[in-house]
Amino acid sequence: SVNPDLASERQTASFCVEKLTALLDGGTEQTRIRRAVVEAIQSDPVFSSENQYFQTQNERYEAAVRKAVHLQKKMHEMGWTENGPEYKYIYRALSGDVAFLLHRVFMRSISMLGSDKQIAKWIPLATQLRLIGSYAQTELGHGTYLQGLETTAIFDTATQEFILNTPKISAMKWWPGDMGRSATHTVVFAQLYIHGKCYGIHPFIVQIRSLQDHSLCPGITAGDIGPKMNFEAIDNGYLMLKNVRIPRENMLSKFCEVRPDGTYVRQGSQKINYFTMTAVRISLISDEVLTPLMKACTIAIRYSVVRRQSKLKPGEQEAKILDYQTQQEKLLPQLAAAYAFHFINNYLQELFDRGYREIQRKNFDMLPELHALSSGFKAVITHHSTAAVEICLRACGGHGYSLLSGLPSLYTKILASCIYEGENTILLLQTARFLIKCFMAVSAGQPVPPSVTYLAAVKPGKCPAKNKSDFLSPDIYTEAYQHVAVRLISSTAAKLQDLIQSGAKKYDAWNQCTVQLVQAAKAHCHYITVKNFAETVEKLETKAGIQRIMKHLCDLFALHGIFSNTGAFLHDGYISAAQMDMVTASYLDLLAVIRKDAVPLVDAFDFTDKSLNSALGSYDGQVYQRLYEWAQKSPTNKMSPAYERYLKPLLHNALSKL
Amino acid sequence: SVNPDLASERQTASFCVEKLTALLDGGTEQTRIRRAVVEAIQSDPVFSSENQYFQTQNERYEAAVRKAVHLQKKMHEMGWTENGPEYKYIYRALSGDVAFLLHRVFMRSISMLGSDKQIAKWIPLATQLRLIGSYAQTELGHGTYLQGLETTAIFDTATQEFILNTPKISAMKWWPGDMGRSATHTVVFAQLYIHGKCYGIHPFIVQIRSLQDHSLCPGITAGDIGPKMNFEAIDNGYLMLKNVRIPRENMLSKFCEVRPDGTYVRQGSQKINYFTMTAVRISLISDEVLTPLMKACTIAIRYSVVRRQSKLKPGEQEAKILDYQTQQEKLLPQLAAAYAFHFINNYLQELFDRGYREIQRKNFDMLPELHALSSGFKAVITHHSTAAVEICLRACGGHGYSLLSGLPSLYTKILASCIYEGENTILLLQTARFLIKCFMAVSAGQPVPPSVTYLAAVKPGKCPAKNKSDFLSPDIYTEAYQHVAVRLISSTAAKLQDLIQSGAKKYDAWNQCTVQLVQAAKAHCHYITVKNFAETVEKLETKAGIQRIMKHLCDLFALHGIFSNTGAFLHDGYISAAQMDMVTASYLDLLAVIRKDAVPLVDAFDFTDKSLNSALGSYDGQVYQRLYEWAQKSPTNKMSPAYERYLKPLLHNALSKL
Repeated sequence: SVNPDLASERQTASFCVEKLTALLDGGTEQTRIRRAVVEAIQSDPVFSSENQYFQTQNERYEAAVRKAVHLQKKMHEMGWTENGPEYKYIYRALSGDVAFLLHRVFMRSISMLGSDKQIAKWIPLATQLRLIGSYAQTELGHGTYLQGLETTAIFDTATQEFILNTPKISAMKWWPGDMGRSATHTVVFAQLYIHGKCYGIHPFIVQIRSLQDHSLCPGITAGDIGPKMNFEAIDNGYLMLKNVRIPRENMLSKFCEVRPDGTYVRQGSQKINYFTMTAVRISLISDEVLTPLMKACTIAIRYSVVRRQSKLKPGEQEAKILDYQTQQEKLLPQLAAAYAFHFINNYLQELFDRGYREIQRKNFDMLPELHALSSGFKAVITHHSTAAVEICLRACGGHGYSLLSGLPSLYTKILASCIYEGENTILLLQTARFLIKCFMAVSAGQPVPPSVTYLAAVKPGKCPAKNKSDFLSPDIYTEAYQHVAVRLISSTAAKLQDLIQSGAKKYDAWNQCTVQLVQAAKAHCHYITVKNFAETVEKLETKAGIQRIMKHLCDLFALHGIFSNTGAFLHDGYISAAQMDMVTASYLDLLAVIRKDAVPLVDAFDFTDKSLNSALGSYDGQVYQRLYEWAQKSPTNKMSPAYERYLKPLLHNALSKL
Repeated sequence: SVNPDLASERQTASFCVEKLTALLDGGTEQTRIRRAVVEAIQSDPVFSSENQYFQTQNERYEAAVRKAVHLQKKMHEMGWTENGPEYKYIYRALSGDVAFLLHRVFMRSISMLGSDKQIAKWIPLATQLRLIGSYAQTELGHGTYLQGLETTAIFDTATQEFILNTPKISAMKWWPGDMGRSATHTVVFAQLYIHGKCYGIHPFIVQIRSLQDHSLCPGITAGDIGPKMNFEAIDNGYLMLKNVRIPRENMLSKFCEVRPDGTYVRQGSQKINYFTMTAVRISLISDEVLTPLMKACTIAIRYSVVRRQSKLKPGEQEAKILDYQTQQEKLLPQLAAAYAFHFINNYLQELFDRGYREIQRKNFDMLPELHALSSGFKAVITHHSTAAVEICLRACGGHGYSLLSGLPSLYTKILASCIYEGENTILLLQTARFLIKCFMAVSAGQPVPPSVTYLAAVKPGKCPAKNKSDFLSPDIYTEAYQHVAVRLISSTAAKLQDLIQSGAKKYDAWNQCTVQLVQAAKAHCHYITVKNFAETVEKLETKAGIQRIMKHLCDLFALHGIFSNTGAFLHDGYISAAQMDMVTASYLDLLAVIRKDAVPLVDAFDFTDKSLNSALGSYDGQVYQRLYEWAQKSPTNKMSPAYERYLKPLLHNALSKL
């Protein structure tokens, strides 16, 4: 039975939830396929995650390996293929809690970087899981700056082998998933040396464990890096190499080859390499960021209509906490952000697909824009979503702090997305570099990519809004975001030039502007997100109330951004103080409007109770019953030896005294 | 041997580290006592926390009980007493990782709320740990709003007993520490009923487990609430009561008594009760918030001078990451905040001590101000420090994400401080209520407490700064903070009155202003913090460079606050856009200045390696060596059954194919 406090929220939905779900999925057929996959996975007990909050890191690893092995069978049974429409839903249904994720990266890097011969040899073996691959790039002392990697691969002409070494402790490979305990092979990135000359970083296939008994191969030291904030299921590992010899054929050689005599040959364009990172950054947004954000919103919003606390009106029963303005102000902007990021993710996907088609036609023109956008949006979306999940957790008070709420794991996992695949600050600075370059080009009258043509439109001007309802006009707020982005980019470009003109070295001037460059890059991404949301809403069909509620969310997202960052808009008087008060009024009004549809808006994300795995967020809202039932299953409720060991001697004498 | 990249940072300190440590401790004698305690605790293997990142919740609980029992012996041995100068350092040295913390709350509540007879009976037993107490207030469905508690205590005149019940699942006690597995007794808060009439919430002593065999007493259901985001060592528990009978004497009766015939007698003033919460909120700032914040700064800053990444200048070696402006902008404001909060904590302590003396003289005049300040500062400091620790964690990239860095535990623990002892939003609204009241009083020419007399000084005015160095004048920035606080409080008061005058109900008007009321309360606390920091610096001795470096930190704290919240200062033009650009310039300049002393400034916190328990933060800066050594000890590096069970069948056929 559904908690009546939750049930009543669903009766007053202003739109059709099922239609919105289909919109999010990209069509009813996609919804059907997704649900079928989720049903098949979640009805299979091997894939259960029910006990995960009680398990040790070792138990989580065991379960992940079991699931990965079972998944191979399951896919065969169900007729699902790696390239089929079901694949993306499998990962979502498993909440990523499965082993051999790096095995897929291993395969992808061979496909992208290997010769046809190498692909023909390794890919079938890997596909059938006859070996387990990993991907060893990051070192203990080296992350984002790949040129700094210290692992070496020295070509030995005599034996036609490469000799691999991690010469110092800081060169030890560190973090690769599946490497700590599972992998038999790995791609290793190392500085290639031939006849004493360094040719830079190249990829090599190295066997690290025996296929017979899984023991480490000669010259290999490897193991697990130990406990992390999350990812207990993954055996992130370390790897040291001491004079490990591999045949010449093991250097991945689609783009570079070492001939038997040691001649180094470069072939084809390596530009496509950048494209791989772009692809990874865009693909992680959906799986690793949007899904957890949507889950956190679902949990916190459902809980907030079930939890009652204090009296809003004297004499009435305690109020649902979502009826408090402060609770609305915590949660509803995060819900709006989830939708905003869903739509910008669609935009990025389309751009990426277009870019991919162009590249296949050998046209690399879109690469800089794609690189800049994927970097910036990866940073902005992961940062914002991480903060949002934390807000959801805190908004649930003490119960949010229990692992059983599901929120702590969502938070500790999404947090990593700010760090991996390019640390956010460094990514934003890459976007900033692109923006400064484009701004210079535009100022010189040169053409620039479509997403930055707006930089040409530098006009002082003032916001034309006359009353608070004007701020519900997408033109008004989109224009304001654009104005701020242009202002920040142009003023930072000016500071940069000033510094250089007054004698600063270029690198030094750049460093002195980086705090502001980061702000400029964020403003650019924020503007594009708002603009894209507004344009998406414009195009939605007006039926079933979908467009209206999406318009409200778009307004909320935009006004929340202004409300939280008033200085940027007030700085040059583009928005006046009086107008800012209108923004605030409009923003606070909107909270009360969207609050009415809050539960239907999270219902539309269509998570099953098993995917949420939360005592607070289940569809029926029976929060207290579930917390109590789950707590009883905790291993901390088994007999503890502490009583016999410590408490009994303390207490045994006390009885007589009472 | 100290990592040379760290050693070089210490050679250029602009001040005497040992002097600063003494300043933080409150004198050289305090430093001596603290070090002696830390040495005694940390040299005793029973108190070791070395393996804690590898332990399960059950193992952590066992260790905490062992430590608590051992501590009793140790204190006796060392001649340390609960009221002695050593006591506060013991908790710090143990990083709070010890059982029976709620036992102390149990004792305190009996001392504060019990009659002399009750104190004489229970306190000696509790002091000798002949029983283990807990404190059962929060319920599954009820937290901050105490009047909503559902547990009942019905007086039975016939048997002279109270009959206790948790009548619904939402009434179940939930969260009390030490209750899940250890406690034999607990104070239970319940609605008192006599002859069918409810007299509100009262405290009762209830035995929950046998002193003979530790089994649950009749009518008691209790256990552990399961895994949480941190506090693995604590057995937070649940408790259900079904017709549990306790003698009349077990109601704590300093202020209220039930006579044998059921007459309810209230005696003395209960105002002192508010004072207890004030005391708790102030005392947690130092132990639970400042210490972890200082640890996080120490870890992140030491790591940032050891970690090198990318080239700042072409041709040179990779740069220390602390040399990047963006890294400075992440970490140095957090360091400044740690000092700012240390000094405001001293201010609050003094105010509290003064209030305590007044109350003993039956003068309760300071209570409202103390309540408002302790609520607001608890919220502001916990919020800011939690965000700061998260920034430190993220600033260390992937290594920060490893539990071995120590940062994840610091974060997951400090996060709880935003929720417990009053949820932050609710506390800020209490501060806001006080501020609005005082603003009204001041406007009517009535007297107000000293900390809010500034509210009378509403003057429009403009900031008089003419160039960026003017913003290094404490008068200039303190005035600006004051201006913003007055503006936010007065404008919200005006909105509140407007709403009421246009017919809104008072409670509804209040709810519609809460988002802005929270902002106003924060602005007030921020202003007091800046003002106090500036006044503290003013009074410091000028010797040994201490005053100079503290002045820099004060400036940084103040300017960072303006830089991060420009809108509040720009809104009514108090600071102009041109002046804001000066703030930014001054702020960025300061980062480079303080960066030079960053390591000495964290060294002054004087944490031992054992207290930090961090592979990144140790005094010698041997980061990579330590990460590798620690990882090897992880239980994830023991043989896993996954190979035999899952991997071997997968792989056994593969060898022949390669």
